[in-house]
Amino acid sequence: MTSAAFDVLGIGNAIVDVISRADEAFLGRHGLVKGSMMLIDEARAETLYAAMGPGIEMSGGSCGNTMAGVASFGGKGAYIGKVRDDQLGGVFGHDLKATGVSFDTPRANSGPATARCLILVTPDAQRTMNTYLGACTGLGSADIDTTVVGAAQVTYVEGYLWDAPEAKKAVLKAFDAAHAAGRLVSITLSDSFCVDRYRDEFRDLLRNKVDILFGNESEIKSLYQVGTFEEAMEATRQEAKIAALTRSEKGSIVVKGGETYAVPAGAVAKVVDTTGAGDLYAAGFLFGYTHGKPLAECARLGGLAAAEIISHVGARPEQALRGLI
Amino acid sequence: MTSAAFDVLGIGNAIVDVISRADEAFLGRHGLVKGSMMLIDEARAETLYAAMGPGIEMSGGSCGNTMAGVASFGGKGAYIGKVRDDQLGGVFGHDLKATGVSFDTPRANSGPATARCLILVTPDAQRTMNTYLGACTGLGSADIDTTVVGAAQVTYVEGYLWDAPEAKKAVLKAFDAAHAAGRLVSITLSDSFCVDRYRDEFRDLLRNKVDILFGNESEIKSLYQVGTFEEAMEATRQEAKIAALTRSEKGSIVVKGGETYAVPAGAVAKVVDTTGAGDLYAAGFLFGYTHGKPLAECARLGGLAAAEIISHVGARPEQALRGLI
Repeated sequence: MTSAAFDVLGIGNAIVDVISRADEAFLGRHGLVKGSMMLIDEARAETLYAAMGPGIEMSGGSCGNTMAGVASFGGKGAYIGKVRDDQLGGVFGHDLKATGVSFDTPRANSGPATARCLILVTPDAQRTMNTYLGACTGLGSADIDTTVVGAAQVTYVEGYLWDAPEAKKAVLKAFDAAHAAGRLVSITLSDSFCVDRYRDEFRDLLRNKVDILFGNESEIKSLYQVGTFEEAMEATRQEAKIAALTRSEKGSIVVKGGETYAVPAGAVAKVVDTTGAGDLYAAGFLFGYTHGKPLAECARLGGLAAAEIISHVGARPEQALRGLI
Repeated sequence: MTSAAFDVLGIGNAIVDVISRADEAFLGRHGLVKGSMMLIDEARAETLYAAMGPGIEMSGGSCGNTMAGVASFGGKGAYIGKVRDDQLGGVFGHDLKATGVSFDTPRANSGPATARCLILVTPDAQRTMNTYLGACTGLGSADIDTTVVGAAQVTYVEGYLWDAPEAKKAVLKAFDAAHAAGRLVSITLSDSFCVDRYRDEFRDLLRNKVDILFGNESEIKSLYQVGTFEEAMEATRQEAKIAALTRSEKGSIVVKGGETYAVPAGAVAKVVDTTGAGDLYAAGFLFGYTHGKPLAECARLGGLAAAEIISHVGARPEQALRGLI
């Protein structure tokens, strides 16, 4: 690739996480599906928050986590996402910029508050996410700086953006700008329910636009509506140029045409909170990819980053990931 | 004591902590004294925050931490403190009420923002605190509900309140109401610099109003301006009715007239962040005291709670303290 100011440009829903421990009974009482991400409105967010235990707040958002991970590896990152000019918006911006990621999207000065994700971590370390999109719904094409897009080796986006119609248009603008500049584009399927909402659009993107796909087992099974990982993997191989497929403790498999690379998961002493595992896998993979590493090494770096993130509460790295290489 | 709706009423500066890791060089560059609490204005708070690494936000405030600890032991608590009607004020109120503590102080709807404490945790697990008092300066006598004061076995306050002149008056009103109702009052000296600012007032309080004093080694040495713990302890014994004196890994000593009880520190596998150690010691002690435990057992419960809090980042318990008894 030609030289680039940024390794990765991320576009995502800019969200502050509110993380609390909960038991299975709490999920049942509030009709929550363990392991999923559910979109909620403001009233529901307030009701659920009032019922939750004490929390900690930290910047999150799937793609924001990935970009913090890229920076933690030593990569050069930029981010586009929408917050409001409120306290949590200030927190989000500070935390991302403090990792070294460039983040200049104008903050909304009216409209809904900065997005929050109420995350309930059950004793089995699983996370159940309830997202109030708030200001994220204000992300639009005007926020896409095509100069920045053209300056990044890879533009990476989250499938979750499809939940905000204007954001989807912004992504498509960015994808076109990236390709026009000879750059690559990448997407994560985000979660199986998200795939269920936008299956046809995502498959169309894979066939026609996406250079690197990220998805986990349940997401690609949902994408192709098949019952086994193997079937889903083969279907993905037919449509995606490069696909990095994660399988939790079974590690990951990268497919590229006829090539297949299976890499074991990183070692974890104790799984504390799985929030962000996929986000950080993408961080490690993209850092490796934009630094010319072979696909199997990209997958290994993804696994290392995922292992770090699930060993503690929260979806941003606690230690410098470059130290793990 | 006669029956009481609350075991402990806490009055304190209602603060949200912003916790970040930092190295010694960062402290040096910004003129910070390791282990201390420094008051900062809004401009300084913004400058320091901009320079800090990514953080996590969680409710704090010395007395707020203590009350969360009392509740975590299963005690009945109430809290009086001032936040604004902003997002961080909402976080503070939610987190305290979610522990079961009663908290009804009206939120300010104008004036400065909810207080923040920028906490830098160095690799040696020490914390250095920078507090922007914000809305806390609006706490005043009108916020003291004497019915609540009269309904609590012990009214417990933090010495830090002396930094907000109206808050000091509020405390004195509460102390008088507590004694008028036949209840007890208790204070923590907060930190040695705070003692330095209000030495004479604190000593006067000890002689004339306070029933239970909390202080650590450096605080009581500062209080009596003596060089050794033993001298300070003996001086404290002369003035305080009951004093619970903490000495970090050396445990704590309780003195009451001629009685002395030395209790070892709770066991800790690894000290991660000392923020809140004193706050949680007070929680355990006061829970024990209001449940009729002997002084040595009160000190043991304090040590258990302190050990839990320093084993992780943050100053609110991660596990139910009643499970440690």
